[in-house]
Amino acid sequence: MPKSLDVCLTPALIPLYNVEEYIVVVIDIFRATSSICYGIENGAEAIIPVAEVEECAAYREKGLKYLLAAERNGEVVTGFDFGNSPFSYTTEKVGGKTVVLTTTNGTHALHLSRSAKKVVIGSFLNLTALCNWLKTQQENILLVCAGWKNNFNLEDTLFAGAVTEQLKDAGFTLDDPAIAANDLYQIGKNDISQYLSKTSHGERLRKLGIEKDIAFCLQVDLTTAIPILNGERLMKL
Amino acid sequence: MPKSLDVCLTPALIPLYNVEEYIVVVIDIFRATSSICYGIENGAEAIIPVAEVEECAAYREKGLKYLLAAERNGEVVTGFDFGNSPFSYTTEKVGGKTVVLTTTNGTHALHLSRSAKKVVIGSFLNLTALCNWLKTQQENILLVCAGWKNNFNLEDTLFAGAVTEQLKDAGFTLDDPAIAANDLYQIGKNDISQYLSKTSHGERLRKLGIEKDIAFCLQVDLTTAIPILNGERLMKL
Repeated sequence: MPKSLDVCLTPALIPLYNVEEYIVVVIDIFRATSSICYGIENGAEAIIPVAEVEECAAYREKGLKYLLAAERNGEVVTGFDFGNSPFSYTTEKVGGKTVVLTTTNGTHALHLSRSAKKVVIGSFLNLTALCNWLKTQQENILLVCAGWKNNFNLEDTLFAGAVTEQLKDAGFTLDDPAIAANDLYQIGKNDISQYLSKTSHGERLRKLGIEKDIAFCLQVDLTTAIPILNGERLMKL
Repeated sequence: MPKSLDVCLTPALIPLYNVEEYIVVVIDIFRATSSICYGIENGAEAIIPVAEVEECAAYREKGLKYLLAAERNGEVVTGFDFGNSPFSYTTEKVGGKTVVLTTTNGTHALHLSRSAKKVVIGSFLNLTALCNWLKTQQENILLVCAGWKNNFNLEDTLFAGAVTEQLKDAGFTLDDPAIAANDLYQIGKNDISQYLSKTSHGERLRKLGIEKDIAFCLQVDLTTAIPILNGERLMKL
């Protein structure tokens, strides 16, 4: 029986899937999963996603090897080491360290996906490495878009479409959201940045002055590490 | 301030919107809202959407002027007058009658949209009449896709994209789902039937032997009536 390649367009729809039957790929392009891929590539020992800022702050007492990253509504929370900018996840900053990360949307999607067979992290940065690994797994795959406040966004969906593009000839059955994501990718793929510039979220992020982050997150195949959830920790596969 | 034109991709996402700030258009192309548009066009006095088969059956005791329509998982429920096929909603059958209708997805979306400023019914059958009316309203518009079992489907989204196409130059601000729906419509518009043939739901409906219904529901501008929710009843605007 052919395996399924399904796309969950927002975390609010995760309950519609039996996640335990899937390998889940969590996607939060601007910027959590891009930064996670970059941080693990650059030697972070682990990245621990947590849901609440308070949970993140509690790690302060556990010692200096933890870096605390907290962001709400696109901005670094006062008193934390950094937020979601991928430029904070360089070898110099995160090499050998454990980063405790809380974000608005990505962590939410991760927590809801915990019962999956495996949970891995996807972004344009590790696109091809991720897809090559997924092809070897012989499992149903669910691409979970973190979205924005539980609703659909274009950047995460477009990335789901990019994954679908690499996997669609590998014998998977696509659900309607996967077909839609792939079709949207066909429209946007020649200039993803231009395509996304018309979206609400791009506009919001531009106002926050993080155009450089956006450009960074849209680089394809900059990294090869695949972060995988191991208990509470995201580590290099 | 420009008005919003937003698309709610599945009923599961309705709680993310303040529906009381919108005119809601409920969309269930295969086949509830197509049949409702056709029935109201053909002189049905009213169509009463109900959530449960039992609720529908209760109208049997209220007299012969009620026609009872019930469908679950795409098939007519035993003992009811008919289901969701638009061919059951001709002048001969429904003229002057009140139809009590329960469906899997459309009724669900309608019930969740009740607190909106107005709730109207859209389908390809009444596309242009609906859009012309919406342009005169000076209100925020939320296009609610009934989807399939609370998840996204392509046919309802494509119709939302068709509405967006007619309204997008009328000064509305589009949210990400509206942009996506409109882009998908650009891909599918030249042959909607062909485009939808690759979807899961199209496949499911073909297996039920209702290809004629599908073709019927994809006819554009066959009707001009706009069904509007008035208390419990859908009536001609």
